Amino acid sequence: MKNEKDIKKTMGNTGEFGFIDKIRESLKSKNPSVTLGIGDDAAIFKPTPGHELVFTTDMLVEGRHFDFKLITPWQLGAKTMAVNISDCAAMGAKPTVAVVSLGVPKNFPVADLEAFYDGMKSWGESFGAQIVGGDTVGSDQFVVNIAMIGEVESGRALKRSGAQVGDALFVTGTLGDSAAGLHALQNPSAKGKEITSILIKRHLTPVPRFNSGRHLATNRLATSAIDISDGLSSEVHHLCGESGVGAEVHEEGVPLSASLLHYCEENKLNPLDFALHGGEDYELLFTVPLNKISEVVQKLAGETGVACKAIGRMVPKAKGITLISKKAQRVPLESKGFDHFSKKG
Amino acid sequence: MKNEKDIKKTMGNTGEFGFIDKIRESLKSKNPSVTLGIGDDAAIFKPTPGHELVFTTDMLVEGRHFDFKLITPWQLGAKTMAVNISDCAAMGAKPTVAVVSLGVPKNFPVADLEAFYDGMKSWGESFGAQIVGGDTVGSDQFVVNIAMIGEVESGRALKRSGAQVGDALFVTGTLGDSAAGLHALQNPSAKGKEITSILIKRHLTPVPRFNSGRHLATNRLATSAIDISDGLSSEVHHLCGESGVGAEVHEEGVPLSASLLHYCEENKLNPLDFALHGGEDYELLFTVPLNKISEVVQKLAGETGVACKAIGRMVPKAKGITLISKKAQRVPLESKGFDHFSKKG
Repeated sequence: MKNEKDIKKTMGNTGEFGFIDKIRESLKSKNPSVTLGIGDDAAIFKPTPGHELVFTTDMLVEGRHFDFKLITPWQLGAKTMAVNISDCAAMGAKPTVAVVSLGVPKNFPVADLEAFYDGMKSWGESFGAQIVGGDTVGSDQFVVNIAMIGEVESGRALKRSGAQVGDALFVTGTLGDSAAGLHALQNPSAKGKEITSILIKRHLTPVPRFNSGRHLATNRLATSAIDISDGLSSEVHHLCGESGVGAEVHEEGVPLSASLLHYCEENKLNPLDFALHGGEDYELLFTVPLNKISEVVQKLAGETGVACKAIGRMVPKAKGITLISKKAQRVPLESKGFDHFSKKG
Repeated sequence: MKNEKDIKKTMGNTGEFGFIDKIRESLKSKNPSVTLGIGDDAAIFKPTPGHELVFTTDMLVEGRHFDFKLITPWQLGAKTMAVNISDCAAMGAKPTVAVVSLGVPKNFPVADLEAFYDGMKSWGESFGAQIVGGDTVGSDQFVVNIAMIGEVESGRALKRSGAQVGDALFVTGTLGDSAAGLHALQNPSAKGKEITSILIKRHLTPVPRFNSGRHLATNRLATSAIDISDGLSSEVHHLCGESGVGAEVHEEGVPLSASLLHYCEENKLNPLDFALHGGEDYELLFTVPLNKISEVVQKLAGETGVACKAIGRMVPKAKGITLISKKAQRVPLESKGFDHFSKKG
């Protein structure tokens, strides 16, 4: 329990070095491949022979990506870590080490920053990612950046560029829950209270599809993969763009949770809008060649504990990217993914 | 040459994806160990067998670390890259790959962002660091974070923690120039115009001591090392803290450039204040065992093109950290390094 004196501590009176000293002990590495953790000009680690490394980074900015009225510091820490782990998962890689940069307003309570670190540490360690360093500076808005390294057996990484015409298009889990959770958070008078906590949890503390990504990569089941951060429609466009193919997505195939359907019915909303364009699902979108489909359908869910569903197939580029409705109507699937510059004021 | 249409483009009307497409071609990797560059969920690279990896990150925030009235976007790009390369150099490592996160205000001109990338790319490639990915988001202040990976022969990394009692304490180059350059930028009426450009250049586009760090590591000449980002006094404290020793620093040994001395004389300033506490020198501070001193003195400057100078020696921890004046007076060397929380509003 924090005493009153602790609660009154802010970054303004504790300072960067004071804070680093405070958290350093709790972040001591248990990973034998980390030769040197926090406290030097850089961390040192030994890569595993026979592996390639993946390297990713994500920045989240207060007021754009999150609002401390809607998310706790602990949850934000967990989510920031999840976003980066999801990128590793989309490559089929195991996350190994991460560095964390923070821009922190002067009046930010040190206790909140410790909770934020607890969230990062907890979510990171669950998936094998160790915080080995970082930078903490002053700023007007709270800004967090994580850069993460993961390892994948050489030649097995899942890229966006490998999809072939004829491959089936799959997604893990269900889509749209996170966006509906955000909708519920932003609309306290929305109906369906009995199921909103499930949706809100999917928005605030998403679980990256680590096992799914690893299973697909180590068993060479997918020709391409991407994680759904900006929304399904946007990610289908990215995958097609990198692979030089088109796609047909069947509306009927898009996996929707019972919670999403219920919430949308109660509030007269279209669940497909959330599922196609909502974003922040952190599910995996991937392509599977014909001769591997039965193996994916039979084994992926059982081995990983996360369902997967075929939602369409890859077609020649000239055919474009099409959404096929339940009534077999074909319309272009427009990319309406989240773009922080075009969407915000 | 930019045409008028290009100049009017801002991040608000170009968007994240539009900008990524724009810079992607120019950042294509020439490094054969980079299997996959910008454009996927993560980059992929192959580490060199027999090496350990170092991993570092630095965040710079507009209004705290830089002011666009005093630094151009190109210079800021070069400097941000230099800061990270300096961390690698302080570990004795070669920088290899970097990811860049940017928080960019909506009205920021795309042409300025391209210049910023040019600066990063130019400085990075000079030292072997390739930009392989990143994240670009909207924010109120301009924020840049670079995370960088470097390689060092296994077991050769220079840590802060290896200094022994009796080791000599060395620095590369001269100290205080960068802080004096900042002083000149902030005081347009300061005297000594004929030499301020040298000081300003050291502040805006510092050259990381890559060759010095590599020479010390590969020849096992140093027991510890750190780069001087916060100021000599602060870094001596860090080195002593991590190594569990004290230090004596001789005022007479501290290397001061002719430009700094002239600028301080003209403006009635104390050059030692800049040299001890100014920061952003990005010189290396390192310790050398007695039996290696002659080799360092005779060879380091010749092999690397950068001078080095002994400024003191390491003593038992109980003796503390002392500054010895030209008149042989002993005073505690207080740590007055730059701390963004305690120093700023």
